[in-house]
Amino acid sequence: MYFLGIDLGGTSIKGGIVDRRGEILAQGQVPTRADDGAEAVLAQIEDLAKELMATAGIKGSQLQGAGIGIPGSVDVEEGLVRLAPNLHWRNFPLKEKIEKVLRLPVFLDNDAHVAALGEMWQGAGQDYRDILMITIGTGIGSAVILGGEVHRGFFGYGAELGHVKVEPEGPLCECGGRGCLETLASATAIVHQAKRELGRGRPSLLQDKEALEAKDVLHAAGQGDELALEVVNRAAGYLGVALANAVFLLGPAAVIIGGGVAQAGEVLLKPLKKRFEEALGPWQIKPLPLLLARLGNKAGFIGAAYLSLSFFKKARYV
Amino acid sequence: MYFLGIDLGGTSIKGGIVDRRGEILAQGQVPTRADDGAEAVLAQIEDLAKELMATAGIKGSQLQGAGIGIPGSVDVEEGLVRLAPNLHWRNFPLKEKIEKVLRLPVFLDNDAHVAALGEMWQGAGQDYRDILMITIGTGIGSAVILGGEVHRGFFGYGAELGHVKVEPEGPLCECGGRGCLETLASATAIVHQAKRELGRGRPSLLQDKEALEAKDVLHAAGQGDELALEVVNRAAGYLGVALANAVFLLGPAAVIIGGGVAQAGEVLLKPLKKRFEEALGPWQIKPLPLLLARLGNKAGFIGAAYLSLSFFKKARYV
Repeated sequence: MYFLGIDLGGTSIKGGIVDRRGEILAQGQVPTRADDGAEAVLAQIEDLAKELMATAGIKGSQLQGAGIGIPGSVDVEEGLVRLAPNLHWRNFPLKEKIEKVLRLPVFLDNDAHVAALGEMWQGAGQDYRDILMITIGTGIGSAVILGGEVHRGFFGYGAELGHVKVEPEGPLCECGGRGCLETLASATAIVHQAKRELGRGRPSLLQDKEALEAKDVLHAAGQGDELALEVVNRAAGYLGVALANAVFLLGPAAVIIGGGVAQAGEVLLKPLKKRFEEALGPWQIKPLPLLLARLGNKAGFIGAAYLSLSFFKKARYV
Repeated sequence: MYFLGIDLGGTSIKGGIVDRRGEILAQGQVPTRADDGAEAVLAQIEDLAKELMATAGIKGSQLQGAGIGIPGSVDVEEGLVRLAPNLHWRNFPLKEKIEKVLRLPVFLDNDAHVAALGEMWQGAGQDYRDILMITIGTGIGSAVILGGEVHRGFFGYGAELGHVKVEPEGPLCECGGRGCLETLASATAIVHQAKRELGRGRPSLLQDKEALEAKDVLHAAGQGDELALEVVNRAAGYLGVALANAVFLLGPAAVIIGGGVAQAGEVLLKPLKKRFEEALGPWQIKPLPLLLARLGNKAGFIGAAYLSLSFFKKARYV
């Protein structure tokens, strides 16, 4: 039996067909036609599923179920997308709609949650069942897995590490809060802080750079640029302490770091790890694994397939 | 059937006999003879148990089990007290020893954990199964209950909210870390900060106070003393933000605040709640209950009795 995994993003829809051992039989992606309305997106998912089945050489009857990762908040029980700004969806009954189209049982969850499930199943977290995952990109996403299951908490939105307050009088966040980790350590924050320092006329390799991106700042820091190093170290410090504080509360067996910023490697990870270890200090009985995500942008569809597989596993159908 | 609950503190041993509905049949306490060695403490627990049974008018055969709350870290599976500095115990096999003495199945857990179980069963948390509890006293203790069970995390020590870093360059904590919440918002911290401000010669109602205690500072703040208000508001701010950050990660259904400092009432709770609400901001779908602990120093033995009861409940014996 096979499982369809869909990573429904605001920019692209990624999908794959995966077997119960995690082997990928087919994978593909299309640009999301979010502006054409929900029906257009449903049709895109249907077409992608057909294309993937053709590539994999399987029939619809060989698919046991599907999972979909959503860029927003999801009511998992009701199969409802509560709010997905990138898709312009609000209270959209995706489960009901897409089950009719695909003629399969479909399971939904937030994209950060399915990515963490993917890493646990086939990526960096394979040896662990209690995982804190942070995704450092344009924003900061996070997911907590306890005993192999996504921890959603009472509000149902899971862990929101990106909105933990690390500077109570810090910059205003899009969420309406002040000093959220996301405003001080995301790719967006790194660019913002570098621009502010450059605006003060400080010398830097970044001085004449147009359309500055976080990867430019990280690259300059790697070359020893003082301004860039300062910005990157500050972000890394916030990340290290916030992760250590999360460990004090959640007690995961491993921390996984994903997202574009993390791919920059040691220039960010070294100071992050230093602050993380300092903050845990003597409480750390043995060094807590701080792992880099391994599945890249496949984590979403692999985890979405696992979301479906795990339902059938629990019901002892597979 | 009845259950024996013991709250084994460094200063006193409190105990009670409780029925399965939570009714207290007998309660009592004795000063802990920690300096006389572990055998003396075991004998004290045995004597207290006998005294409580006599008061309750029950025989040993009517006790189904016992629970003990420990002021330190406990290996719950092994029944081992790993480290309890107040008792001078390290790797002490308490479960094995005390089961021989009491001739009962005995269950151990950390004192903050059993107090939270007590509040969930018979106190402020009766309507909730997902609870974050903080105890603000000489130090800061905490416990997390998820789905009605203590969340211990992978390291096994549960949630350590008192050692979350809220000022990375803050004061040195006894744990070896810097800027732990405990160093900035416990009773000890409040006294320390008030003394420092008084040392600067600032006018205050506390000026001529000898042997300053946290309750004096809280009382002066209640009377509008500027220095005291400043100290209390600062501590309350750290507590409010730390609790909100914990909510972002854990998603409890309620927060319970216990300990001597919390009993001071609105002078601390009002600014704490303000900062808590601000930090949660728009993420709070509906106001999260911030409740005062209700069982006082009975929470420990009541929760310890529940620890034992819940074992038999799970095994469907009661």
